[in-house]
Amino acid sequence: MDTVAIRHLYHSTDEYVGKSVTVAGWVKTVRDSKTFGFIELNDGTFFKSVQVVFEDKLDNFKDIAKLGVGAAIIVTGDLVATPGQKQPFEIKATEIVVEGSCPAEYPLQKKRHSFEFLRQIAHLRPRTNTFAAVFRVRSLASYAIHKFFQERDFVYAHTPIITGSDCEGAGEMFQVTTLPQVGAKLDDQGKVDYKEDFFGKMANLTVSGQLSAETFAMAFRDVYTFGPTFRAEKSNTPRHAAEFWMIEPEIAFADLEDDMRLAEDMLKFVIKYILENAPEEMAFFNQFVEKGVLDKLNHVVSSDFGRVTYTEAIEILENCGKTFEYPVHWGCDLQTEHERFLAEEHFKKPVFVTDYPKEIKSFYMRLNDDNKTVAATDLLVPGVGELIGGSQREERLDVLLERMAELGLKEEDYWWYLDLRRFGGTRHAGFGLGFERLIMYVTGMTNIRDVIPFPRTTGQADF
Amino acid sequence: MDTVAIRHLYHSTDEYVGKSVTVAGWVKTVRDSKTFGFIELNDGTFFKSVQVVFEDKLDNFKDIAKLGVGAAIIVTGDLVATPGQKQPFEIKATEIVVEGSCPAEYPLQKKRHSFEFLRQIAHLRPRTNTFAAVFRVRSLASYAIHKFFQERDFVYAHTPIITGSDCEGAGEMFQVTTLPQVGAKLDDQGKVDYKEDFFGKMANLTVSGQLSAETFAMAFRDVYTFGPTFRAEKSNTPRHAAEFWMIEPEIAFADLEDDMRLAEDMLKFVIKYILENAPEEMAFFNQFVEKGVLDKLNHVVSSDFGRVTYTEAIEILENCGKTFEYPVHWGCDLQTEHERFLAEEHFKKPVFVTDYPKEIKSFYMRLNDDNKTVAATDLLVPGVGELIGGSQREERLDVLLERMAELGLKEEDYWWYLDLRRFGGTRHAGFGLGFERLIMYVTGMTNIRDVIPFPRTTGQADF
Repeated sequence: MDTVAIRHLYHSTDEYVGKSVTVAGWVKTVRDSKTFGFIELNDGTFFKSVQVVFEDKLDNFKDIAKLGVGAAIIVTGDLVATPGQKQPFEIKATEIVVEGSCPAEYPLQKKRHSFEFLRQIAHLRPRTNTFAAVFRVRSLASYAIHKFFQERDFVYAHTPIITGSDCEGAGEMFQVTTLPQVGAKLDDQGKVDYKEDFFGKMANLTVSGQLSAETFAMAFRDVYTFGPTFRAEKSNTPRHAAEFWMIEPEIAFADLEDDMRLAEDMLKFVIKYILENAPEEMAFFNQFVEKGVLDKLNHVVSSDFGRVTYTEAIEILENCGKTFEYPVHWGCDLQTEHERFLAEEHFKKPVFVTDYPKEIKSFYMRLNDDNKTVAATDLLVPGVGELIGGSQREERLDVLLERMAELGLKEEDYWWYLDLRRFGGTRHAGFGLGFERLIMYVTGMTNIRDVIPFPRTTGQADF
Repeated sequence: MDTVAIRHLYHSTDEYVGKSVTVAGWVKTVRDSKTFGFIELNDGTFFKSVQVVFEDKLDNFKDIAKLGVGAAIIVTGDLVATPGQKQPFEIKATEIVVEGSCPAEYPLQKKRHSFEFLRQIAHLRPRTNTFAAVFRVRSLASYAIHKFFQERDFVYAHTPIITGSDCEGAGEMFQVTTLPQVGAKLDDQGKVDYKEDFFGKMANLTVSGQLSAETFAMAFRDVYTFGPTFRAEKSNTPRHAAEFWMIEPEIAFADLEDDMRLAEDMLKFVIKYILENAPEEMAFFNQFVEKGVLDKLNHVVSSDFGRVTYTEAIEILENCGKTFEYPVHWGCDLQTEHERFLAEEHFKKPVFVTDYPKEIKSFYMRLNDDNKTVAATDLLVPGVGELIGGSQREERLDVLLERMAELGLKEEDYWWYLDLRRFGGTRHAGFGLGFERLIMYVTGMTNIRDVIPFPRTTGQADF
């Protein structure tokens, strides 16, 4: 169909003033008096709607005046500048065709709906202002991430979703199977015979693409993944989802410092991209969702992120005179309250905490010379706590094997991962960014269910 | 680390000539005589390697001369132009640091390896020329797809991977579960009680994001998905994988013609992007993988794609004088041999076949006025057959319900999909592009296992 996107009318108004245009979209409101009326029309291409003026000259004036909220229409008319008014222009309709009506049962009548209610109609909620804004920002943020890495010649790797590796911490994993849940063939010991399953062995949904990404970094140097990951954790909280998207860059010939620089550059790039490309949506969030979110983000973009070691951070927390719910001591895992204190009250800007005790971090993180800490970092940001977690990877085969033995990990499960240290290994590093957490941070939305089109959580896989 | 990417040395040689540079990468070959030697060094940022010249002035000359293929090194030296030689420049090393050695067992010694062999070392194969080229092209193609849609203001929708909908054709789906495979609680009828499962009901891996994408198109008008999809089909062929990526745009206020125009524009954009951004890789494919692939792609980019109805196509096939393995008659599904004849011999260019019999197409495709065919299209391309499948969607609630009843589909399973026709429905259309099939087409690779980093197929989920 030959129609103009409302986005273009706003961005190139001068081109269209005085001309006849055809737009197609959905009715947000209709007001009418006896001889004329106004329609607020939104076509989804732009956050703002366009005002359509229609008069009783139209054959179908009465039908149009009775249009329900949500109806799909195609409007042809003259675009007229309206300087000094709320809208910079309006369309004086010469023809309105009803493409799809919308009855009064339509759940999205013009009033405020709770986010809880809107989750039950997740198939319709992108038509509301809030979710139109959230999901456009999510789309732009996705693109910004690709743009950032691709402009720096990183190779995008589609790491596998289904994994046959046992090495990702099977406890919280979803099993993927084509075996019947009742009556699967058993082996001699009464256990399920996974040789009969689709992949010839037990398979799960991935919890991270990192180990696979490392194989690519050892070939392409700079790579990233961006894909769905899964956690079968029964945490019914506003911050946990069973299915979420992760970004995991991996860089070779690079250390923790390079890694932190990359994380800082990436985060600033993505935030700037959103601020520039979704100003209407961001103004909406600033007004209705999180007052001050624009200041918060502008501050992040203009700050030089701080650096502090875990050991120093513990000292700061111990001496700050504040009482925390979880007491602080060297060796403890930092809780959100600690992270937020550091970022919000002490540093007053994003801060990288580095060199955590090895006991609270993963086996693949590089052991520091003190033999107590690893070259890991968490980026803490005001308002949320941890946003990014990264590390330099252990590239020394002997050290890695020792660490694996300490933790009871089996060498044969990791043969290919260990090969990376046998054949031309090099220092390398990477980090993980939970995409939904980023979107919550940028939009001010406080429930992960409200930044995912169709969220999957404990007991919930509708739509 | 402060090093220069070899890509930059090639793209901005003049900037570096006569200067000292530091590069880091992996040894492809080493040749040495008594007093000097050459290293072909590749850092993964560029398809071509750089030649490093080293002399016995270096303290570690003997160690360097003995370096194994695959070793990781950091080279500092002067970049010298070498006009008239095979390489435009070389680096005269002043220092070479060995970052990671590589023993003789390294499986990628300088010789040809079969693709079958390389699949067994999928963690190392991106280090070979062929797979370095394949996976860089895969990365660039991914980005080109995002770029194409984002520049046209399409909203990228992350449709769910885990689905609780029964409506996608459960036969070929993988089940996702946290129930034990033996001893799961049964209900009164001896069936598994899925209320006990993670999502409170049976869940599967998605086979398509289309239905979800339609909900977004009814809000944003133009949207697309790009994510993994799954098929638990036990087809052990070079064209089938259990896990693959799909691109599924969906456009509102649009008909089949708009859909075909979008598909043609997208395909040409992506191919052009690859030709422009991976000329070295494409030259390699043209020489070693599929002779003539460049001509093939340039022809696609410069063709106006043909259009033919299914009914006309059947007539062409019936009257072409060729004997096919599968006989042709109106109502039959087109086989690859038919598709390739049409694209390669009859039209000699990509061609959209439209308006297929409803019996061989999906329930959601829009019924044409003849009541016999639906507004569906397949794009057939020379050398491969079907590359894209799309359709205008049935937006008329009554017609859709009738079609579903004919096929025995339950209304309650589709309540949200049907809502899209109840509340401001509009004509809309979309298509699906199997990403791996596109990569095979563009690179000339003939086995889907060789265009996926870690392929998942029947009996195979290693790494």
